[in-house]
Amino acid sequence: MIVIKIGGSEGIDLDLVADDVAALIKQGRKMIVVHGGSALTNQVAEALGHPPRFVTSPSGHTSRRTDRKTLEIFEMVYCGSVNKGFVEKLQSRGVNAVGLSGIDGRIWEGKRKDAIRIVENGKTMMLRDDYTGTVEKINTALLQSLLDAGYLPVLTPPAISYEGVAINVDADRAAGLTAAAFNAEAMMLLSNVPGLMKKFPDESTLIPHVARSGIEAAAEYAQGRMKKKVLGAQEALDGGVKKVIMGDARIPNPIQAALNGRGTVFE
Amino acid sequence: MIVIKIGGSEGIDLDLVADDVAALIKQGRKMIVVHGGSALTNQVAEALGHPPRFVTSPSGHTSRRTDRKTLEIFEMVYCGSVNKGFVEKLQSRGVNAVGLSGIDGRIWEGKRKDAIRIVENGKTMMLRDDYTGTVEKINTALLQSLLDAGYLPVLTPPAISYEGVAINVDADRAAGLTAAAFNAEAMMLLSNVPGLMKKFPDESTLIPHVARSGIEAAAEYAQGRMKKKVLGAQEALDGGVKKVIMGDARIPNPIQAALNGRGTVFE
Repeated sequence: MIVIKIGGSEGIDLDLVADDVAALIKQGRKMIVVHGGSALTNQVAEALGHPPRFVTSPSGHTSRRTDRKTLEIFEMVYCGSVNKGFVEKLQSRGVNAVGLSGIDGRIWEGKRKDAIRIVENGKTMMLRDDYTGTVEKINTALLQSLLDAGYLPVLTPPAISYEGVAINVDADRAAGLTAAAFNAEAMMLLSNVPGLMKKFPDESTLIPHVARSGIEAAAEYAQGRMKKKVLGAQEALDGGVKKVIMGDARIPNPIQAALNGRGTVFE
Repeated sequence: MIVIKIGGSEGIDLDLVADDVAALIKQGRKMIVVHGGSALTNQVAEALGHPPRFVTSPSGHTSRRTDRKTLEIFEMVYCGSVNKGFVEKLQSRGVNAVGLSGIDGRIWEGKRKDAIRIVENGKTMMLRDDYTGTVEKINTALLQSLLDAGYLPVLTPPAISYEGVAINVDADRAAGLTAAAFNAEAMMLLSNVPGLMKKFPDESTLIPHVARSGIEAAAEYAQGRMKKKVLGAQEALDGGVKKVIMGDARIPNPIQAALNGRGTVFE
C-alpha cells in the first residue's frame, strides 16, 4: 500500500498524475490518494468576494483562516471541483475511483480547536470562530472495504469533529496519519517543487535524503507550506511508514519518479 | 428500503429534512438520500460571472445548459456545498452519512447525449458541446455494501458516461432508477410545493392520488420542473417501486408526512 498526496498549489499537472496513478493501478498497486486545493480555493474565494486570509501560529506554521463562509467555499473547491475533477480524470483512464471527504463516514475524525493562537504584527491573539482542527482517528474499515472491492479512494479535507462539525485540517498531515494507519510502505508528498531545498527556491540546493534522526534539522530549512509537509512526513514515519518522499508533481510519471527516489527521501 | 429525493429549489429547509432522516434512521429504516442543488447553482454561477441558461426540448422538458464551465460550477455546488453541507447536518445528528456523486465508483452510469435538440424562439436547434445525459445503470453493489456496513448514502449528480465523462443528469429520474434498482417500497420526491397541483401554484388544487393508469393524464398538469418529477415517478413505478409520493420539504417531519400520504401519492 502506498499513499499519494497531491498538492493544491499552482503548476501541478493533474493529467500527468492521473496517467501515473492509472499506470500503477494497472500494475496491481494498492493505493490511497489524498489531495489539496489551496490555489483554486484562493481564486474562487476572491471571485466570490470573500478573499482568503492566512494566519501564522506562534510556532511559525501558516494556515488558512477558516470562518464559516470560508469553510463553505473550501468545500466547494476541495470536495466539488478538485475531488470530482480528479475522480473524472481517473474514471476516463479506467480507474474506478471513489471521491470522499474526511466527513463522509467519519473517515478523518478529530478535535476542533476551541480557539487558535495567532501572531499578527508581533502580537499573539486568539481566534474563536475558526473551523480548523486536527485529525486523530482514521476510519480504516471503510477505506479497506473500498480497496478490497477494487475501488481507489480519493480523499480530501475537511475532516469532522467529534461533535459532527466540518473542520479544515492539513491535508499533508491527514495523509501522513492515513499512511500510518495502513502501515503503508511509502507516502509520496507531490507538489510544485522538486522536494525540500536548503535555500528555497534554489532547486540546486535540493536535499536528496533525510534520515529519521535528521528531521528536526531538516525542518529548519522548510519554508511556509513545507513546514506542514515535514510534519506530515515525521508523523507518517513515527506511525510506522517506511519512507516518505517529497516529489515533483509537474513532471511525467511523478509517482514512479518519487518511488525511485527522485525528490527528498525521508526514511 | 426507501429513497428520499430532496429538491434543490429555494425554500426547502434542510435542517427539518435532516431531523426527519435522523429520526427514521433511529427507528431502523434503511434509506438512500438523493439531492439536487439547482437554486444555489444559479446563484453561484451568477456570482462567478457565468449566468445559468436553460433550454427546452421539443417535448417541453426544461434543463440546464451544461457547457464545461457550467459542469464545473455544478460540481462545486452539488458535490461540494450541498452534499457536504447535508452530510455534516446528518453527522451532527448522529447519522453516519457518506456523500457520493454518481461519478464515484460509477454509481450512476449512462449515456452522454451527442447532441441535444432544443427549441428557441419556435425554432429547433442542435447543441453539441453539452455535458448532459441519462442514467442507465446503477452500481447497487457499492451502495448495498455501504448500507450493510451501517452508512447512509447521500447521492448527487453528476453521473458518469460510459467513456468516463461527467454528465449532468436529472436527479429526480436518477432517484427513480435507484429506487427501482433496490425494489424500494417507496420513493419520496420532496420539494418546495405540497405536491402536484391541477392549477399550479394554487395549492387548493393539489392532486392527492394518481393511479398508475392515470400518470399520463397527471403529467399534463405538471409545469416546468414538475414534468421531470412525474417522469421520475413513472420510471420508479415501472421499475417495481410500490409507491412514489411527491411531498413538501418545507414542513416538520417532511418524510414521515409523505410516508403517511401527505402530498401526491402515485401507486
